[in-house]
Amino acid sequence: MIDFETILSNVRKSVPLIHNITNYVTVNDCANILLACGGSPIMSDDEDEVSEITSICGGLNINIGTLNKNTIPSMFIAGRRANELGHPVLLDPVGAGASGLRTQTAARLIEEVKFTVIRGNISEIKALAQGTGSTKGVDADESDKVNADNLDSVVSFARSFSKSTGAVIAITGATDVIVDEKGACVINNGHPMMSRITGTGCMLSAMTAAFVTANRERTFEAVCAAVIAMGLCGEIAHSRLTELDGNSSYRNYIIDAVYNLTGQQLSEGAKYEMR
Amino acid sequence: MIDFETILSNVRKSVPLIHNITNYVTVNDCANILLACGGSPIMSDDEDEVSEITSICGGLNINIGTLNKNTIPSMFIAGRRANELGHPVLLDPVGAGASGLRTQTAARLIEEVKFTVIRGNISEIKALAQGTGSTKGVDADESDKVNADNLDSVVSFARSFSKSTGAVIAITGATDVIVDEKGACVINNGHPMMSRITGTGCMLSAMTAAFVTANRERTFEAVCAAVIAMGLCGEIAHSRLTELDGNSSYRNYIIDAVYNLTGQQLSEGAKYEMR
Amino acid sequence: MIDFETILSNVRKSVPLIHNITNYVTVNDCANILLACGGSPIMSDDEDEVSEITSICGGLNINIGTLNKNTIPSMFIAGRRANELGHPVLLDPVGAGASGLRTQTAARLIEEVKFTVIRGNISEIKALAQGTGSTKGVDADESDKVNADNLDSVVSFARSFSKSTGAVIAITGATDVIVDEKGACVINNGHPMMSRITGTGCMLSAMTAAFVTANRERTFEAVCAAVIAMGLCGEIAHSRLTELDGNSSYRNYIIDAVYNLTGQQLSEGAKYEMR
Repeated sequence: MIDFETILSNVRKSVPLIHNITNYVTVNDCANILLACGGSPIMSDDEDEVSEITSICGGLNINIGTLNKNTIPSMFIAGRRANELGHPVLLDPVGAGASGLRTQTAARLIEEVKFTVIRGNISEIKALAQGTGSTKGVDADESDKVNADNLDSVVSFARSFSKSTGAVIAITGATDVIVDEKGACVINNGHPMMSRITGTGCMLSAMTAAFVTANRERTFEAVCAAVIAMGLCGEIAHSRLTELDGNSSYRNYIIDAVYNLTGQQLSEGAKYEMR
Repeated sequence: MIDFETILSNVRKSVPLIHNITNYVTVNDCANILLACGGSPIMSDDEDEVSEITSICGGLNINIGTLNKNTIPSMFIAGRRANELGHPVLLDPVGAGASGLRTQTAARLIEEVKFTVIRGNISEIKALAQGTGSTKGVDADESDKVNADNLDSVVSFARSFSKSTGAVIAITGATDVIVDEKGACVINNGHPMMSRITGTGCMLSAMTAAFVTANRERTFEAVCAAVIAMGLCGEIAHSRLTELDGNSSYRNYIIDAVYNLTGQQLSEGAKYEMR
Repeated sequence: MIDFETILSNVRKSVPLIHNITNYVTVNDCANILLACGGSPIMSDDEDEVSEITSICGGLNINIGTLNKNTIPSMFIAGRRANELGHPVLLDPVGAGASGLRTQTAARLIEEVKFTVIRGNISEIKALAQGTGSTKGVDADESDKVNADNLDSVVSFARSFSKSTGAVIAITGATDVIVDEKGACVINNGHPMMSRITGTGCMLSAMTAAFVTANRERTFEAVCAAVIAMGLCGEIAHSRLTELDGNSSYRNYIIDAVYNLTGQQLSEGAKYEMR
């Protein structure tokens, strides 16, 4: 059993300060979801300050969406510095597989930085772990999707990716699969409409960074709790939607739900299975 | 008669993937409105990946707001590549007329890239078509506004701009004028409060890129349908506003309205005249 | 007594165009709050256009969040140009004290540009005024917070900072302290939940730039009015929150409240004391 109450309470009590090097598309939502869950965000991507900024933080979230010549070196500097300091570091390889620049940057980051968590959709993770996976832009390809038939093989390739990287691997989608060297957690929270909002993945990555930073002794469970929290908040937010609401209100309601989330809601609403 | 049902249905069935090189002010709203209308967004602006990114997409949206040294070359690379591939390309010349950099970049883009659609406010389009137009920042100047008295001359200068560029010209404002080499459509959907939100123009451009990408055989009608859809959603969203709501909720409601928009709503709510 | 009705009415009548060089985290909210209060935003940060852009504007807002190699030179160019033109210029030293780059950039800006207003949290202002202040990321450190016991010393150091810079100093937090060479205003509007939204400080800075630009003959009072307006809108917005609402809806409601704000609301709701 995941101890949701303790994990969430640790986030809210410690208010982990998370350094984000992230894309400019969903950055505001990432900052607001960090505040909603109980963390505190700082965004900084210039190579002249990222080492110092990451030093005053508790954890680092590297998201390669809208990466560019200026921000790529900063990812390496901050990642190495966070490693030196023993801070948790999360990689969100947005669009890996969609361009050589993204795939190679993510691959080089994994070589040079030790990540605590790597979170992406199945196509992004496949692109990095296997050099395959047909990323359709920033969304997973239909042919890659996780289902009952391929679940065992997904767990298996995620496990070997976890072994080679030392990171908890979080493959998120309709079904989420969280894997480390020993365990696996399959999660079925969430709502299909979450894919109609930009940034649910980015927001989850930012929140996961806060969860693992506040729960250093139980990284695997903290990742599972964050993924479950995001999915559950997607369900709670969906239940608020009126006939006139669409994806923009839904985005707001999801962040609102994270803000109001309790350990009890998490315990009662979690739909997961440890394997 | 514009076949709204088919045009909208084509967007939703084909889920056009749109590459956006756009400003960081309204980029999140552009991504969410693309998802709302049925498309799929990817944002990417580094010259080392834009050619590859645009190649996996169906259409390209170039918006020059907050342009800079790094993103300008990317606009040319992506634009030329999209041309090679025969993808629809839209230009939103945000702030053309407000600085030499913007006016010249837009003018050079028009020389070197064949645009399918150029969408801007009257001052921006005048700045490009005539070298005149007194842009007041990113809003149209009062003296330029389209009205019954100058409508014929606006259609006429837009037509010659369409002839010289080969693009459908969409001049949007209180009255919208869509012109190609042969036809003209004058649209009166919308609500004045739309000008009190940042990014209604940017969002419309992104959505228009999706509409034309999903309707390659009827570009002119697809542009008209997108402009009508945006205006109609501005009306629908306005009717939801409570006394306490302001421009921030209005922005959310507009995107929500696009999410829920049906072909029937479009057919019944469209206020346009073909000339 | 601050003449709130005149100050707000001046903003709405003159629609001040504000040039913003600001971070990509909260930029959309800054644009929307400028529109909400009655101003008009333009964002531009490339050194090849900032001089021209600031020239067509009425005021300039420089916010150093997510500063980088490309935007820092633009801040100096625009700042000096705005000084030449006699435009009000505001500095928001986001994260000063958190990195050498931020502290030094803000310090150099203060040396080379004459600011009309400098607005930050107590830790940021201390970092600049005294070379002390233990900034915790982008939030003020608990140990720095303004309270009844240290209020006199805060006013006193703010006054000497105002004398050395020539700027109105606005230190905002649970209690706000606005100081110029002669006067001081202590403000107690606002709600603690405002600190759970990203960008309330950035939004306030943008709005303050509009207020001072539209009220050139009463800069000090215009700054006070803007700070009071933000706090009061935080109260109004908070009273709208339902049980399910959280920080994302709260952000929308605050901007909405600015949109609907009247001079009468301001006069009646203001909680301030001149010292």
